[in-house]
Amino acid sequence: MLYKSENPHGGGVYGRTIKLDFSVNTNPLGTPPAAIRAVVESAGLLCQYPDPGCGALVSALAEREGVPEACVLCGGGAAELIFSYCLAVRPRRALELAPTFSEYAAALEAAGCQVERHPLRAEEGFAATDALLEVLSDTDWDAVFLCNPNNPTGQLLDPALLEEVFRRCRRRGIRLFVDECFLDLSDGWADHSLKKYVLEYNGIFILRAFTKTYGMAGLRLGYCLSGDGALLSAMSRLTQPWNVSLPAQAAGAAALGEEAFLAEARALIGRERPQLRGELEKLGFTVCPSQANYLLFWSPKDIFQPLLERGILIRDCSNYRGLGPGWYRAAVKLPEENRSFIQALGEI
Amino acid sequence: MLYKSENPHGGGVYGRTIKLDFSVNTNPLGTPPAAIRAVVESAGLLCQYPDPGCGALVSALAEREGVPEACVLCGGGAAELIFSYCLAVRPRRALELAPTFSEYAAALEAAGCQVERHPLRAEEGFAATDALLEVLSDTDWDAVFLCNPNNPTGQLLDPALLEEVFRRCRRRGIRLFVDECFLDLSDGWADHSLKKYVLEYNGIFILRAFTKTYGMAGLRLGYCLSGDGALLSAMSRLTQPWNVSLPAQAAGAAALGEEAFLAEARALIGRERPQLRGELEKLGFTVCPSQANYLLFWSPKDIFQPLLERGILIRDCSNYRGLGPGWYRAAVKLPEENRSFIQALGEI
Repeated sequence: MLYKSENPHGGGVYGRTIKLDFSVNTNPLGTPPAAIRAVVESAGLLCQYPDPGCGALVSALAEREGVPEACVLCGGGAAELIFSYCLAVRPRRALELAPTFSEYAAALEAAGCQVERHPLRAEEGFAATDALLEVLSDTDWDAVFLCNPNNPTGQLLDPALLEEVFRRCRRRGIRLFVDECFLDLSDGWADHSLKKYVLEYNGIFILRAFTKTYGMAGLRLGYCLSGDGALLSAMSRLTQPWNVSLPAQAAGAAALGEEAFLAEARALIGRERPQLRGELEKLGFTVCPSQANYLLFWSPKDIFQPLLERGILIRDCSNYRGLGPGWYRAAVKLPEENRSFIQALGEI
Repeated sequence: MLYKSENPHGGGVYGRTIKLDFSVNTNPLGTPPAAIRAVVESAGLLCQYPDPGCGALVSALAEREGVPEACVLCGGGAAELIFSYCLAVRPRRALELAPTFSEYAAALEAAGCQVERHPLRAEEGFAATDALLEVLSDTDWDAVFLCNPNNPTGQLLDPALLEEVFRRCRRRGIRLFVDECFLDLSDGWADHSLKKYVLEYNGIFILRAFTKTYGMAGLRLGYCLSGDGALLSAMSRLTQPWNVSLPAQAAGAAALGEEAFLAEARALIGRERPQLRGELEKLGFTVCPSQANYLLFWSPKDIFQPLLERGILIRDCSNYRGLGPGWYRAAVKLPEENRSFIQALGEI
């Protein structure tokens, strides 16, 4: 028995023969060459401890995000920051959407929090509606967790609704945690971020990662933006001094210079997503609207196992709260990869 | 202001011009070539998530350590495991030695624990004595933290005393945390480990790392051995699913095959430590007995700053509880590096 081996997420390529992994939603172009080079170059420096303060990286991130350095904290993947946030805040009662990424609840429950869910409805394409505002006004929450665009639906939150959620949280002093890890690869990258409020309301917390944006899932590098210095200090004290490895820091700093790579990925996703969606619908699947680099869809019959037999891994979403058997998620990948996927589905 | 930038440890090479870093106690031969190759080879796979269960690595570690796989848990450096241990156990009252590695107390205090110290005495060469047994029988402890060999003293615990501490902890149901991160590079590597008791007493917890043994501080890879499956499960749930990066898993598995590299490092340390010690004593320093790959010594005048001006970094140990100004720690490094260090000290 191995600890952590019952992985509820995608990316389960270990112990399987996988030719195409559609189960993880990272950049379809992979890792930027500059980041790969930085990792190779760092291999000779590995006997050295990483910089605990992530100095060079924090400085580059503060400039990129337009916030002071004191508003930036790096972590060993966004997932680590979810845990240190929950352990530092220790909310008693938190709200999340359903379906959504399961690590918020995992971390909240590890921190002893009661997690409640606002269900999104399949017949509304899993879009959040004004019903969310009613939940916020009815009861006292310590924290609200949003994912924008949401995972696994790929839906961006309506900007007017998001603004209103923000205003209500600020008015009531509710902490608002917004996971924007997929935002950079979505249609909302330019103007849907709530990072503009970081200096205005200490209760807002923005989560970002290199994992998806720069195809660096294996390296573990995420960061967060918050104006609450006491919170970031507390999160720092709850993690080891060297939580971001030396190769991750080097690759992150290198990746931030790869704007053209990112623009190319966005253009590719913008072209491929509607095509992939159209092909899935032609095959009879019900596809959820998405503005992100992945599609959630429903199939009347099992496709996970037959695809696996063809070396293709997708995300079986039946274990998401608020979903059930028949729901699957697939990443938008390179044109030829997407065609192989559709061809395999056609055969099934 | 950067979080974590007030690093109380060695390795502060960032923002400084350092030619020789004697402040960290990693393998004097650096990183094994096979581990460096594994990192270089992993650079092309970084868009893939690491294996959450660390399957291949856990299997290799279980074989090396002679314990079942269910007794092994990997972490992003031993330091991460110290934090997840303390957060999982949440002891109310814990005992550590003084001086010792400061992250036990940092993690215990982050978990809300009251930390008390058993002082080691300079005039006894900072060796633990039977006085430790008295402390154990006098009061009720939830956990006792030992470091063997101790950091920063380099002292191995007397085997008979260690056995008696183990027996008393087992009898009273006190958790015994033994940090053996430096054991593999010390004179006690073959027979001083308490890992033989892992299957006998669930309250014993052994901490190990690749950081020092295989010069991989930058990569973040540690592991622990415990027969307490519920504890290892709880630690797993308190950390993100992907806490050990893909390059770290690959390098770790590769390093475990490098027994000759490790034997060569031990032989080198065995030759160099007495020489370095003799030279330091000739220069008038008081040197603490050490069986490890580092020496703790006392100087009547400041040597940190003058060495820094010569591009040499040592560990100023004045911030260790139980030490004070004048105490320094230096690693045992390659012969030519040790000579440069002694020469620089001679000039000062």
